[in-house]
Amino acid sequence: MDEKRYQRKIYLEDKPRGEAVNEILEAASLSPKTEFIPTSEALGRITSEPVFAKVSMPHFHASAMDGVAVNAEDTYEAHEQRPLHLSKGEQFVYVDTGNAIPQQFNAVIMIENVQILDDETIEIIEPATPWQHIRPIGEDIVQEEMLFPQGHRLRPADLGALLAAQITEVPVAKKPLVTIIPTGSELIQAESSLTSGKIIEFNGTVFANYIKEWGGEPDLKAIVRDEPENIKKALLDAVEVSDIVVINAGSSAGSKDYTVHIIAELGTVFTHGVATRPGKPVILGQINGKIVVGVPGYPVSAYLALEWFVRPLVCQYLQIPVPKRQTLEVKLGRRIVSTMGAEDFVRMNIGYVNGQFIANPLTRAAGVTMSLVRADGLLVVSPDLLGYEQGDTVEIELLRPLEEIRNSIVFSGSHDLTIDLLSSQLKRQRNDMRIVSSHVGSMAGVMAIRKGEAHVAGIHLLDPETKEYNVSYVKKLLAGQEVVLYPFLKRTQGWIVPKGNPLKVNDVAGLAEAQAEYANRQKGAGTRILFDLLLKEQRISPEQINGYDREMFSHLSVAAEVKGNEKAAGLGIYPAAKAMNLDFIPVADESYDLLMTKAFFESEQGRWLVSIIQSEAFKIEVDKIGGYAVASDAEPIYI
Amino acid sequence: MDEKRYQRKIYLEDKPRGEAVNEILEAASLSPKTEFIPTSEALGRITSEPVFAKVSMPHFHASAMDGVAVNAEDTYEAHEQRPLHLSKGEQFVYVDTGNAIPQQFNAVIMIENVQILDDETIEIIEPATPWQHIRPIGEDIVQEEMLFPQGHRLRPADLGALLAAQITEVPVAKKPLVTIIPTGSELIQAESSLTSGKIIEFNGTVFANYIKEWGGEPDLKAIVRDEPENIKKALLDAVEVSDIVVINAGSSAGSKDYTVHIIAELGTVFTHGVATRPGKPVILGQINGKIVVGVPGYPVSAYLALEWFVRPLVCQYLQIPVPKRQTLEVKLGRRIVSTMGAEDFVRMNIGYVNGQFIANPLTRAAGVTMSLVRADGLLVVSPDLLGYEQGDTVEIELLRPLEEIRNSIVFSGSHDLTIDLLSSQLKRQRNDMRIVSSHVGSMAGVMAIRKGEAHVAGIHLLDPETKEYNVSYVKKLLAGQEVVLYPFLKRTQGWIVPKGNPLKVNDVAGLAEAQAEYANRQKGAGTRILFDLLLKEQRISPEQINGYDREMFSHLSVAAEVKGNEKAAGLGIYPAAKAMNLDFIPVADESYDLLMTKAFFESEQGRWLVSIIQSEAFKIEVDKIGGYAVASDAEPIYI
Repeated sequence: MDEKRYQRKIYLEDKPRGEAVNEILEAASLSPKTEFIPTSEALGRITSEPVFAKVSMPHFHASAMDGVAVNAEDTYEAHEQRPLHLSKGEQFVYVDTGNAIPQQFNAVIMIENVQILDDETIEIIEPATPWQHIRPIGEDIVQEEMLFPQGHRLRPADLGALLAAQITEVPVAKKPLVTIIPTGSELIQAESSLTSGKIIEFNGTVFANYIKEWGGEPDLKAIVRDEPENIKKALLDAVEVSDIVVINAGSSAGSKDYTVHIIAELGTVFTHGVATRPGKPVILGQINGKIVVGVPGYPVSAYLALEWFVRPLVCQYLQIPVPKRQTLEVKLGRRIVSTMGAEDFVRMNIGYVNGQFIANPLTRAAGVTMSLVRADGLLVVSPDLLGYEQGDTVEIELLRPLEEIRNSIVFSGSHDLTIDLLSSQLKRQRNDMRIVSSHVGSMAGVMAIRKGEAHVAGIHLLDPETKEYNVSYVKKLLAGQEVVLYPFLKRTQGWIVPKGNPLKVNDVAGLAEAQAEYANRQKGAGTRILFDLLLKEQRISPEQINGYDREMFSHLSVAAEVKGNEKAAGLGIYPAAKAMNLDFIPVADESYDLLMTKAFFESEQGRWLVSIIQSEAFKIEVDKIGGYAVASDAEPIYI
Repeated sequence: MDEKRYQRKIYLEDKPRGEAVNEILEAASLSPKTEFIPTSEALGRITSEPVFAKVSMPHFHASAMDGVAVNAEDTYEAHEQRPLHLSKGEQFVYVDTGNAIPQQFNAVIMIENVQILDDETIEIIEPATPWQHIRPIGEDIVQEEMLFPQGHRLRPADLGALLAAQITEVPVAKKPLVTIIPTGSELIQAESSLTSGKIIEFNGTVFANYIKEWGGEPDLKAIVRDEPENIKKALLDAVEVSDIVVINAGSSAGSKDYTVHIIAELGTVFTHGVATRPGKPVILGQINGKIVVGVPGYPVSAYLALEWFVRPLVCQYLQIPVPKRQTLEVKLGRRIVSTMGAEDFVRMNIGYVNGQFIANPLTRAAGVTMSLVRADGLLVVSPDLLGYEQGDTVEIELLRPLEEIRNSIVFSGSHDLTIDLLSSQLKRQRNDMRIVSSHVGSMAGVMAIRKGEAHVAGIHLLDPETKEYNVSYVKKLLAGQEVVLYPFLKRTQGWIVPKGNPLKVNDVAGLAEAQAEYANRQKGAGTRILFDLLLKEQRISPEQINGYDREMFSHLSVAAEVKGNEKAAGLGIYPAAKAMNLDFIPVADESYDLLMTKAFFESEQGRWLVSIIQSEAFKIEVDKIGGYAVASDAEPIYI
């Protein structure tokens, strides 16, 4: 098979998502197949037909109390002044709760109201009314009544009702079989050893688990190399046995994106490209009557496309509506720009700060898996909008329980590895609290506190005039706001260089001279400010630094850059160098403090946070990392 | 072992629920055990320790586009007026999206912006900026960064992030083993044949499935007879291997409620009786360090007690907070009376009618499983309240997704078997709609429409004056309201009697004469009104009818009463007699019509309902039941 037959197709459609979904739902018209399974194993399954009770519950008149069963007519004469004697067998029998009432009786008197005279005789002083304390036949379930219609998802209590009605096998919709085909010559299994250019295949596992969650039966196939013949065979095999087929990557318009041509050759292509960002390069087609969904390779695009196109198919098969996510009204902390004519799906962080929900966009790069992991919600910007302004109120689909968002401590500012420890220690004490941190740099952290977008910011801002850390910046930038600066820890900044320091870097002059490939930090980061100060002191201009414009967003990112490049160097904290097994040449000790609003500092969450910082357990963990000194008797500075 | 040692203990405590929970949480202090499981199988599991990335993703500088990798410095001269030629190998290489960038290059130019001159040479007309179109190492995940703290429930996308960071085995909290012991000599398996006095054991299956849902590992044991020695052995065996033990029934104060005595003998009893209704007779104790929870036998009490006491233990073990249910503000359609000094848990139906959520209590009998199945929400009345008034706004915990409640058609009034068919046919066409019906009788149905608590009411009300059905009642009771009476069907009422009609019932006189045990319907039911009219016409007084005061709530309940009692009789519709294989002697044909608000009739839901009624498929299904005539060209009557 000649690769050239599958030529590059540069332009994709921009079909509205709704239209694209409806086309495949109509073409598929999947309907459920029934299978009977034991009721006790039917949790979460969907009834495929209405279910009717086989027996009543109770299926006999049952006593609702411990006591005696009587015939009410026999007791009408009983009175406090004229106690009545009843004889066992003929006029009463003892019953416990749940016991059957013998046919000749029609009422129950509670044992507390019975005087036992001897083995054969009781005395009562009050008449019984007919049917008192009796659970009549069918009080709970009446034989032949409909317990559930079709399309009902069975919950634990539902299984009880089914068994009570003696339905030991229940008709449920068979799970639709969804075959997942990962393609790509660059893909390897996560267990393999990594080499440059190879990428771990993980989308398939994600797909399989989404499909499981949605009620389908996933079948994840082995990785298929980028050869048209292989892909063709995999597709033909899959449509033979599956209800739905998902093929990952090759859905775009690149030179090795064969998929669309192959589907066109074997069947029909309904759509190639939908009007969404991300997620545009989607293929929707049909081979031998089975819907084939080609999803993009970038993880975020891939999962969104799966939800848009595969989930409705699974739900159609199960005869249930596509569940909707809980929504929340939030205020936007930043402006959001959107493409006209396409739906934009923006992953958002949500913080509950000062009594309101504030949301900020995460990275919009479709390749960043962690943006989905970290997202609290999804903002869908409709195709006719150019976006939203900062401060606008918008509705967001939640990706996490609201409770979890409400209980999150929003951590902003500079990155430090101890924040993860703090997070983990806090969760050990208070599993309902959570630290959500974004690494935006010290200056941006201060601004987040100013704008009410965060509870806490980690900062290390050196004042070039006074050589003092943090206080002067906070006073200047947050004048008039009630904030607290909590002295958190001292740490050492230094050069992060490859093992053995091949370029012999020990100051900025040496860095410039050696033409090291420098991994700089983003504007506003405390480490960047320190670096600029060092340049100024040694009168080196930024132009003399190779890589000055290259911005990393955390100490670990800098260390990751240095690792594996003998010519690289960066400035950062010791633990980052240690974690990546790199060399470290100390430059300066600095104060990394926690800036908080006074309201947060005094809140329950704030008090917990401080108590964790002051705990022995936390100090021990920090010492294990090394390179830190925790301020042990720190006094907060009210500003 | 002598049963007498375990004497009746009549009084239970009324301990506040919160206090009771805290005691066992403290006594248990369950902490998680870690197990490493394959990441691909970890969906829904809870991390037991923080998880750090083993590799970066990407772990090399990767191209973000299809194009050529270049050294940016080599391209600075390129200009539209001065095209620049680059030679392959030395000055550029071709790269596809995801390919590694060779170390000597630092930028990518998109293939669209490249002119290919020959196999060795390309031309560009614009300079590249350093690092353009390159995904740097760690853009998504940086080696050593914390991906998840402990206590995180893994979702599909999370598994992708783990695999991407080459974590193929993930540390998760082992599921706590919860042993469930059903006790009771009256219990049988659902597969057994039912005899009088025997009850199907189904609580155990419900418990097991709740525990599964909450993240535990249930172990449901065989039924244990009510013998102290058996119970003791079962408990001792269970505490040996389990993390938590649940024993069902025997937790009250009856003569066979041994459990509390046994737990006291083998260990400690913390609590016997909590201040809740239902759910009061709970036992909380400890044997050999393991918490033992004794839950009541009545299903509703049992499931609530499980949620209150076992769920927090499971969550403590998994180190996660107890999830909270979504809540909703609703208006109460009826008054709710509550016990002072105890929390009341009232199962509620919620209808979204005329743009507001109206909630009404379901039966409060703790023995009615179906009340939990049917409940949309739970109203918790705090111990210091005597209840709520009709019209009060209260907050309800939802037991069903809000979307499902909002899309429900609330059906009230008289019971008819075709309503189930309607429900099932509607769901076939519109799986996002649902009919929720309560059988309250025709008059109560009219009142529900009047009070805005229902969308539709099935009614069959015979006017004794005019002998006309429904119209005169509606005109009188709903004067001034815009409603529609939709002619639904004609059906036959008649005597429901045992096979062969042993008492030869064929009119009310015969019924009185034979002293049949009559199963009457509730006040306000159309069938009751018909019966009263028959009595009046034949001048029989209610006192002459044996069982006149005995009220059944549906045709099927009447038929269930008649079945198995040779002396019984009832009045009802033909299909009910047929379903229970009873004889039927026709008495009168009647009109069973649907009363709707005009707003509902004209809504999307209303139009769907009518289209289903008019469909051929529905008529065929109704004909299969028999005894009905569907009004095929019915014209709605606007009143």
